[in-house]
Amino acid sequence: MTTLKDGDLVLLVGRDRKQYLLRLRAGQSFYTRHGSLRHGDIIGQPLGREVRTHLEYPFLVLEPSTADLIQRIKRNTQIMFPKDISHVLMRLDLFPGRRVIEAGTGSGGLTLALCRQVMPTGRVYSYESNPEAQALARANLEALGLLPYVELKIRDIKEGFDETEVDALFLDVRSPWRYVAPAARALKAGGFFGALVPTANQVSDLLEALQGHGEFAFTEVEELILRPYKAVPARLRPADRIIGHTGYLIFARRVVGGLDKSWALTEQRKRQRLLTEEDEDE
Amino acid sequence: MTTLKDGDLVLLVGRDRKQYLLRLRAGQSFYTRHGSLRHGDIIGQPLGREVRTHLEYPFLVLEPSTADLIQRIKRNTQIMFPKDISHVLMRLDLFPGRRVIEAGTGSGGLTLALCRQVMPTGRVYSYESNPEAQALARANLEALGLLPYVELKIRDIKEGFDETEVDALFLDVRSPWRYVAPAARALKAGGFFGALVPTANQVSDLLEALQGHGEFAFTEVEELILRPYKAVPARLRPADRIIGHTGYLIFARRVVGGLDKSWALTEQRKRQRLLTEEDEDE
Amino acid sequence: MTTLKDGDLVLLVGRDRKQYLLRLRAGQSFYTRHGSLRHGDIIGQPLGREVRTHLEYPFLVLEPSTADLIQRIKRNTQIMFPKDISHVLMRLDLFPGRRVIEAGTGSGGLTLALCRQVMPTGRVYSYESNPEAQALARANLEALGLLPYVELKIRDIKEGFDETEVDALFLDVRSPWRYVAPAARALKAGGFFGALVPTANQVSDLLEALQGHGEFAFTEVEELILRPYKAVPARLRPADRIIGHTGYLIFARRVVGGLDKSWALTEQRKRQRLLTEEDEDE
Amino acid sequence: MTTLKDGDLVLLVGRDRKQYLLRLRAGQSFYTRHGSLRHGDIIGQPLGREVRTHLEYPFLVLEPSTADLIQRIKRNTQIMFPKDISHVLMRLDLFPGRRVIEAGTGSGGLTLALCRQVMPTGRVYSYESNPEAQALARANLEALGLLPYVELKIRDIKEGFDETEVDALFLDVRSPWRYVAPAARALKAGGFFGALVPTANQVSDLLEALQGHGEFAFTEVEELILRPYKAVPARLRPADRIIGHTGYLIFARRVVGGLDKSWALTEQRKRQRLLTEEDEDE
Repeated sequence: MTTLKDGDLVLLVGRDRKQYLLRLRAGQSFYTRHGSLRHGDIIGQPLGREVRTHLEYPFLVLEPSTADLIQRIKRNTQIMFPKDISHVLMRLDLFPGRRVIEAGTGSGGLTLALCRQVMPTGRVYSYESNPEAQALARANLEALGLLPYVELKIRDIKEGFDETEVDALFLDVRSPWRYVAPAARALKAGGFFGALVPTANQVSDLLEALQGHGEFAFTEVEELILRPYKAVPARLRPADRIIGHTGYLIFARRVVGGLDKSWALTEQRKRQRLLTEEDEDE
Repeated sequence: MTTLKDGDLVLLVGRDRKQYLLRLRAGQSFYTRHGSLRHGDIIGQPLGREVRTHLEYPFLVLEPSTADLIQRIKRNTQIMFPKDISHVLMRLDLFPGRRVIEAGTGSGGLTLALCRQVMPTGRVYSYESNPEAQALARANLEALGLLPYVELKIRDIKEGFDETEVDALFLDVRSPWRYVAPAARALKAGGFFGALVPTANQVSDLLEALQGHGEFAFTEVEELILRPYKAVPARLRPADRIIGHTGYLIFARRVVGGLDKSWALTEQRKRQRLLTEEDEDE
Repeated sequence: MTTLKDGDLVLLVGRDRKQYLLRLRAGQSFYTRHGSLRHGDIIGQPLGREVRTHLEYPFLVLEPSTADLIQRIKRNTQIMFPKDISHVLMRLDLFPGRRVIEAGTGSGGLTLALCRQVMPTGRVYSYESNPEAQALARANLEALGLLPYVELKIRDIKEGFDETEVDALFLDVRSPWRYVAPAARALKAGGFFGALVPTANQVSDLLEALQGHGEFAFTEVEELILRPYKAVPARLRPADRIIGHTGYLIFARRVVGGLDKSWALTEQRKRQRLLTEEDEDE
Repeated sequence: MTTLKDGDLVLLVGRDRKQYLLRLRAGQSFYTRHGSLRHGDIIGQPLGREVRTHLEYPFLVLEPSTADLIQRIKRNTQIMFPKDISHVLMRLDLFPGRRVIEAGTGSGGLTLALCRQVMPTGRVYSYESNPEAQALARANLEALGLLPYVELKIRDIKEGFDETEVDALFLDVRSPWRYVAPAARALKAGGFFGALVPTANQVSDLLEALQGHGEFAFTEVEELILRPYKAVPARLRPADRIIGHTGYLIFARRVVGGLDKSWALTEQRKRQRLLTEEDEDE
């Protein structure tokens, strides 16, 4: 049984479902309009239980998950959603020991997930051009104890990346097509490339850059739609209003050695002849 | 630069996009209808390059990702899709060191992803009632060198699980509602519960069991829809035919201590009065 | 060129995109916080033009479409969305001259679309148990001049429908499975049955009733998801927040004559044997 | 009760769910590998019943719906799906008496639905550049008795349309942005414009043309996704494989009189300032 210690990070969830991320510090108190809680009354208790404020308002004390952290960090920019981040972690094949580049850092939401995925032996190299954004990300990562696993860099990535032979690289920037050549130089042969863009026009621009570069195979575009349900057993139904769009995800793998251009496509154009005809009478 | 060694596992992708998972063994050859490849000609080469059969048919030699492995293992059952698996890894908050139970093992697709996520210090406890399924999963996991991280058990889980205080537990079985009580006994307070079921009826049954048990908070139901696109920059469009359904995902967290039943719901029923009225004139 | 006359119904859309349905009456004025408009200044003008209030605030004067009417009528209940209504009109094969039953009337949104689809020679029979709802629907239909095409009835439909040999019948009620037998008695052989329910549990209950009744063939369940985009040419992207669910649509056709039960399904169970096996190891 | 007559059109559905469209002719027979059926044995019978071949194979005899006809006509081109057609009928506000232009005719699937929607007093003007396509559409429409309601024209629509003051106009052609000016000239003020294109790039091109033209208000882009379910009450679930994409639908209304360009957008850009900032840090 896990017992909470001074310095532990906890997620408090109130009866109204509001969530608070809290670092336990003996002697401190947590104040809400529903009353106050002394950290000392939580320290020494096991996780996964109810605590009550002096006004008897109940909170659950939970270990915050990576998804909780992503959603609760301070932000001044749009952040990636956990559903997209988990998909990226899988598609970029990240696990402990991997070296991965991301740009830009933003508020550090993806950064923290990358750190937790490659730690303790791997490393995240995170580039950002806006010093204010980086400062916030640094504060967020420091609060979570993740700074040892990441190098935060201020850089306009047009100048390229410092690293080479990285296992994976992810671009969450406005014009990712401008950085396809530096991305290729940073990635190891066989390395995983990923990007997120909000608009279809950006998808076209990025695909054109990747497919024209000569070292990216198996370009793919995907969208991930999360459909939540109302969890009522006798009246099960999808939620009324949902997030309709977060972004398009583009993936590719870097390959080397003067490849045939056709590798850039995920599907082989077997029936080139037919496809051309189709084009014409489409 | 990574150079391939005897014993390495590689993914060969042919110009026709057919994929082959291969353990390199000096002296062996790989035969296809497009000609043969000697493993010895691959060993010593870097990853991420083209090799050609004696008939000059090109293959790319790549490091297989976890997603590649999930899709390429031998199977005699329906397996979970990588898009669902990555989401489960995030929602169950799995990382190195975690202890996680799954049932059933099936062909081992989720098992291998769980192993790669919690290794080297964590552990997967995987239950299966069908010895043949388990034998196949064991062979798959052994081929990938993952057996050290998993305990494969033959068991009808009605009898319960051997472990306690596990961080997370996932059910991919026909009647998960039957195992809610044993799941609660195995999970630590605050631990993460997950399940996948294909039908809406099963969702209702599982929700009823979870919400009625008294130790599961924040029950949620989600569906994840992956929409692939045709990656043609000048004619970007979603794929014509897609997978319409893989399964419903159900999540909850175990909490303890005689909780109020209302914690079982993710959304608070603030306006209980209004909701009831709504029920009536719906 | 259409010139507006006294008594015409128009849709006014303000620069802020707020919409107003207006019956033009010489001598009357339309007041908004953006200034007033005299009907007399609109009468005699052509449609499809801008008019300005005395404060120079612009409105477009348009002919209201059926979809505009559905969304703008007064309502005290949840109404069906135009995307579902248009699909129902197609699936129930409605056109001028058809006789169709609906229950319940609600605020009359579907009723008005049914009227416009079957008029002038067809007829809508609309049942409702709540007199207040019916009164509102009657007022809505009267304002649109559609009362000649509909019979509004106050009735608990457990007692059955008055009509027989109708071409189509649509149920938008809480427990449609209770009315499957009366629906069969009202429909002509070959007639079209449809229903909308919000929850998956209701779908199961209705399917069971339809498939068990013996006179319903080709039961189908569908959901229609409308995905709007932000219509910005250089930054095309799906809308951020969308309607995630309106309802499940169920369709069937009434057939007669002591049919084999298997007709109830849309897909033939060709490989009965295989399906059973699948059931077992699913 | 409807009794079938010589010359009626019927839909035969076999136990294997194969569908056949048949014009009943006394003296003729219908042959399948399951045996033959004499039309004379169907004539005089009521609709909605089972008939059996001389080999006792069962067929249901049904009235074909518009949706059935769309899916069963002979085609040599991609045709629009009923789910998109019904939506277009609603969005273009078509009903008896309306005059509507479409281009191109293709195999006549949309044409037949337009005819059935505006007949008997309305009219469809259908343009096509390919004489072979038109010939097939003509044969299809003639077989359904719909030629009186349509004018089929061979024309490269770059030269414009013959009609003016039409109520609605629909473009299902490769480069609809080229025909925006002729479309405006053909539509009445307040008239309804619609188009279908398969790719996102085409959507951008069309939006740019519409928004730049000056006479199109409320440009909208929509996608309609039909999700069918397996209609099994005890195991309700979405279908495994579905149509992922048919096309993007674009709508607008023609307005006249030197309008402000901002009317082209459906949503007002209230916070112009904020939007610009968003652009920069997106």
